[in-house]
Amino acid sequence: MSYDALIAHVKQTEALSQAQGLLGWDQQAMMPPRGADQRADQVGALESVIHARRTDPRIEDWLSDIDGGALDPAQAANVRLISRDWSRNRNMPGDLAEAIARATSKGHNVWAAARAESDVAAFVPALTEVVNLKRQQAEAQKLDDETRYDTLLDGFEPGMRTAPLKAILGSLRAPLSDLRERIADSGRDPRDLDGTFEVEGQMSIARDLAGVFGYDWQAGRMDLVAHPFCAGTLGDVRITTRVDTARPFDCLYSAVHEVGHAVYEQGLPPALERTPAGAHASMGVHESQSRLMENQLGRSRAFCGWLHGRMVQTFGIDMGEQEFYAAVNRVTSGFIRTEADEVHYNLHVIMRFDLERALIAGDLEVPDLESAWNERFAADFGQQVTDPAKGVLQDVHWAVGLFGYFPTYALGNIYAAALYEKLTAAIPDLNARLAQGDTSAAVAWLGQNVHRHGAVLPAPALMRQAVGGEVTSAPLIAYLETKFSDLYGV
Amino acid sequence: MSYDALIAHVKQTEALSQAQGLLGWDQQAMMPPRGADQRADQVGALESVIHARRTDPRIEDWLSDIDGGALDPAQAANVRLISRDWSRNRNMPGDLAEAIARATSKGHNVWAAARAESDVAAFVPALTEVVNLKRQQAEAQKLDDETRYDTLLDGFEPGMRTAPLKAILGSLRAPLSDLRERIADSGRDPRDLDGTFEVEGQMSIARDLAGVFGYDWQAGRMDLVAHPFCAGTLGDVRITTRVDTARPFDCLYSAVHEVGHAVYEQGLPPALERTPAGAHASMGVHESQSRLMENQLGRSRAFCGWLHGRMVQTFGIDMGEQEFYAAVNRVTSGFIRTEADEVHYNLHVIMRFDLERALIAGDLEVPDLESAWNERFAADFGQQVTDPAKGVLQDVHWAVGLFGYFPTYALGNIYAAALYEKLTAAIPDLNARLAQGDTSAAVAWLGQNVHRHGAVLPAPALMRQAVGGEVTSAPLIAYLETKFSDLYGV
Repeated sequence: MSYDALIAHVKQTEALSQAQGLLGWDQQAMMPPRGADQRADQVGALESVIHARRTDPRIEDWLSDIDGGALDPAQAANVRLISRDWSRNRNMPGDLAEAIARATSKGHNVWAAARAESDVAAFVPALTEVVNLKRQQAEAQKLDDETRYDTLLDGFEPGMRTAPLKAILGSLRAPLSDLRERIADSGRDPRDLDGTFEVEGQMSIARDLAGVFGYDWQAGRMDLVAHPFCAGTLGDVRITTRVDTARPFDCLYSAVHEVGHAVYEQGLPPALERTPAGAHASMGVHESQSRLMENQLGRSRAFCGWLHGRMVQTFGIDMGEQEFYAAVNRVTSGFIRTEADEVHYNLHVIMRFDLERALIAGDLEVPDLESAWNERFAADFGQQVTDPAKGVLQDVHWAVGLFGYFPTYALGNIYAAALYEKLTAAIPDLNARLAQGDTSAAVAWLGQNVHRHGAVLPAPALMRQAVGGEVTSAPLIAYLETKFSDLYGV
Repeated sequence: MSYDALIAHVKQTEALSQAQGLLGWDQQAMMPPRGADQRADQVGALESVIHARRTDPRIEDWLSDIDGGALDPAQAANVRLISRDWSRNRNMPGDLAEAIARATSKGHNVWAAARAESDVAAFVPALTEVVNLKRQQAEAQKLDDETRYDTLLDGFEPGMRTAPLKAILGSLRAPLSDLRERIADSGRDPRDLDGTFEVEGQMSIARDLAGVFGYDWQAGRMDLVAHPFCAGTLGDVRITTRVDTARPFDCLYSAVHEVGHAVYEQGLPPALERTPAGAHASMGVHESQSRLMENQLGRSRAFCGWLHGRMVQTFGIDMGEQEFYAAVNRVTSGFIRTEADEVHYNLHVIMRFDLERALIAGDLEVPDLESAWNERFAADFGQQVTDPAKGVLQDVHWAVGLFGYFPTYALGNIYAAALYEKLTAAIPDLNARLAQGDTSAAVAWLGQNVHRHGAVLPAPALMRQAVGGEVTSAPLIAYLETKFSDLYGV
């Protein structure tokens, strides 16, 4: 009885949260410019209602009344997850939750305008407000011996702490730096695609790619936005991409990336709909699905053969398959994280992880962020940032309050490589299939081993079960070494 | 103090209602098919929250604490309007409100599928549920000596009752029937456009028309839907249209119609944002703005000259201006209300008004609705309905619970003609302007006399002020007589 009452309450709250998610999707994909102010008020009003429901004192009563012995594993997971959220939420003041919703809604608009104008100064006040509010949130919500950053991280990667995460990401840094330097010294620089690639052709291939990677178009749609993302779950999961007519891979691999997220959401257990056990296990697991589709599958030699055919057909590119594969995987020390190759990508992420820890701890203030960014970028990438739109203004995350999110990208890459090692063992003819544009066996393996489990198991346990042991960074390092030493002869 | 507390509460509720409005827009314009079930749950959850806020007992306390003498006219209007809503809402059970939200959300989807398949039987159970729930709503909410239908009507046309509305609409019937018969007997049948009019060209002209009629594109967007509508207010007002490649006027005049609604919403008083006094005065007034732009301005001889130019340019039509004007205003006894000419339109509306009164009163049940529709249609229009998609299934209104809404269309036509009479007197060179595609003086006059007043005055008082006396159906009858006796020589 108490369990049923608790779940009915949680499901109703989640329906409101889904409505809020739609408002967020709309804001980025559809909303006209003059709608920003009223949208901030709408999001704030909804946040206030959701907060009140999440801190409803009846939750504590229901939780304490539940007989744990009578629960099945999914029910037990729900109780465990709701308890954890409750412990956080009961300490979150309602006006703070509403202030964060408003500040991040407006923050998004200020960021978009500032990025368009390369105007950091215009962004500083808005980001300062967001950072101050997120510090307050962490102070209010932290439990036991958590640091502020531990608390925020836990919102995206439940159970993970800053110290072990630093260790895991740290284990990537030396091998990646070494590989990056060997490639830079190799003297090889594969030819990139050149020419103009019209929007319609790119979107046509992007739509094809979505279908190829298992996206259910009856349960979603694809639109254009400034910063691609995926929104929604189960029967309504919307993907986005963006188009630069000079750089088609940006559009196409953004689409595949978001499809990886979307197919996970579309494949979650419907019976656990709108309950925490029915949701994704963690953002790291989420990112593992998008990165595996984007990189291990989408940027493989075999799949590049298929994509090459579509590019010849649509755009008449004048490249052979092997040269196309090298172009897709071209390693360059660029400014933009979302455009980074697999070798540089995690270095971008680790840099953000370090900067945002300092921001949240109070060791770095927003007015000093641009110079801190530029110094660190020069040190790690050997280049000076000249346009902040390609520097500190490039990502939407901080503007919308997503502190603790960036490191899950690198963790996702580690998980993706570990899953891919098992997947290739399970599907011996994977490459022959990929060469035909057939990812169905791989998508089915991910559905079976990851998607359908939701968050019934905690993320680390789910990953251990899927890969048959502890996850380490070794499969990712081995994958990158093999792929790029071959491509660059290093 | 009590006034401020009341308004803060009302504004927060209205922000949630706006969010719900966006979910409705999305459902019709964007949502993938498999999203319908979760959308119904989202709308139901939001409705439940909104209902709880609208029936919050503090509203009665705040209302009784307010010192009416200290209020300015807008504040007094807010108190008057909130009191009226309060009297209705306190009698509305929460589970009924939620059941209506769910039934009408699902009703929309069932209707869309049933219309696509011309399958009335598939629609009957869903509509039966909606009608039963609306009867219950009317019973719960009716005040004093109201009939059920009075109560529902008051939700769209505050202060109007069924009896005077029957009298006003009734005064149209004989003159319109007479005009319709004279036209039918005239033997004239202007040539219609023929050929295929591609989507892109229609949408290009539709977008131009929106700008021409004063639509602010920074505060809106236009999308394609099955049944055009307008959603939102002030900084975010979205319009929709539909495209039939054989019948471009459907797309173009639907767009102008929705722009009429949209320009009203965009022009409401921003200082009264999210308060009832800052909203539209009534649906009849709303409809007067859309019909005036669509008909009195958009289908005028002068404006048809401008539109003719755009049609020649885009589609190379082979008609002169006068013949084009006759084609735009061609009178035919068709099946579809939204495609009806100005002579037949109100006859469509009066038929629905009579049928829905019977449904709500319990004098007609949903299983008998199709035959009642078809009998009445044969009597009024001299034609047998053979495809229910062009009969009882054609409109979305009943599926989504909009009973009491249809008559406001005819009332809007009466208001539009009365306003137009004043507007032409105030702008002597109107036709010269319209011939140049310049509606700015007319739009400004409407802004000055209607839009900027919101609902500070009750709709009848606002209309009296705008037209300088009681509104009658005489200007509409005179306008139609002049226009169509000229076009048909009758």
